[in-house]
Amino acid sequence: MKLPTKIIETAVNEISRLPGIGKKTALRLCLFLLKKDINFSENISKAIVDLKNKTEYCDICHVICEDGKCSCKSNNPYTNKEILCVVEDTPDVLAIQNTNHYNGLFHVIGGLISPIDGIGPDNLNIDTLEKRVSKGEIKEIIFALSPTLDGDTTAFYISKKLSKYNLRVTTISRGIPIGGEIEYADEVTLGKSISSRINYKIEQ
Amino acid sequence: MKLPTKIIETAVNEISRLPGIGKKTALRLCLFLLKKDINFSENISKAIVDLKNKTEYCDICHVICEDGKCSCKSNNPYTNKEILCVVEDTPDVLAIQNTNHYNGLFHVIGGLISPIDGIGPDNLNIDTLEKRVSKGEIKEIIFALSPTLDGDTTAFYISKKLSKYNLRVTTISRGIPIGGEIEYADEVTLGKSISSRINYKIEQ
Repeated sequence: MKLPTKIIETAVNEISRLPGIGKKTALRLCLFLLKKDINFSENISKAIVDLKNKTEYCDICHVICEDGKCSCKSNNPYTNKEILCVVEDTPDVLAIQNTNHYNGLFHVIGGLISPIDGIGPDNLNIDTLEKRVSKGEIKEIIFALSPTLDGDTTAFYISKKLSKYNLRVTTISRGIPIGGEIEYADEVTLGKSISSRINYKIEQ
Repeated sequence: MKLPTKIIETAVNEISRLPGIGKKTALRLCLFLLKKDINFSENISKAIVDLKNKTEYCDICHVICEDGKCSCKSNNPYTNKEILCVVEDTPDVLAIQNTNHYNGLFHVIGGLISPIDGIGPDNLNIDTLEKRVSKGEIKEIIFALSPTLDGDTTAFYISKKLSKYNLRVTTISRGIPIGGEIEYADEVTLGKSISSRINYKIEQ
């Protein structure tokens, strides 16, 4: 693809380094920006740099926060401080919060144990998790990790490590998604949903 | 969607103002940027601002250029200075250049005549087009405008206006589907439509 100026070429190259954005989309975005006034570009530009400069990871739960004011430090009376959900990364926290089905604490471990990728327990935020649990206030740990080999390994490792504490350890249920057809479900999911069946309750 | 910090919220809002990027994609891009180092964000940020600050529109052909060095002013011996292609906008120039079927001049008129949107001939770069034609060097004008009512109106208006000059007036063949946009046509079809251009006739 020939581009008219070096400046546009640079912009297209930079923008297309973002995930899911190819050269054509990048060019479309560039031409859109060229039509808008300079404030538009400057605002986006500032937001992108601020994003990295002004945010940090909470030193307790490792969720992204601002000025050290993480929600895990606030005294929100609606937060249940006896349950803690262990997730891989910040997007998982947002996804769970948006369900409105959970009002407990979170802990981002920052990845999964993966020997192939050279990620061991020491690369993850597991020490800080144990520190939080050791204070005794937390009664239950919920694993909300990806249902993969790495996710299972990580959950297994953490549950072993925390076995000396008096904790209930649970994992989010796996099964057929709401609205999903049994006929089209994959065998592993369907098998799992049968073996981990729950008592049928009539919702009133 | 609840977001963890004001900074991320601002960034998501800014990025989602770009075309084709919604809040979810914007959040995904933000979280990606947060994982990269600050140079990555700064490079994108700089490219976006430079894009607007350091580019300009050529005062002759109105194509985007840099430091006033437009290709229309260069003495490229491979450029055929006897034919001139009239297009709506810069992406159309890029699309036609990429076909390798055209080595003539370009003229970006910057839009189409559209009474509904209040765009008249005076809002477009038609005066500068006439000025170029009046010098007598150009022998042929090719319309490569979108095959829409506005496109046809614009071609009609320009051909009337230039009828006093001794010009061959052609239009790219309607190989591209009616209702399609030039910017998104595939290169083969677009190239074919240029090489098989037909005489422009005013339909009565």
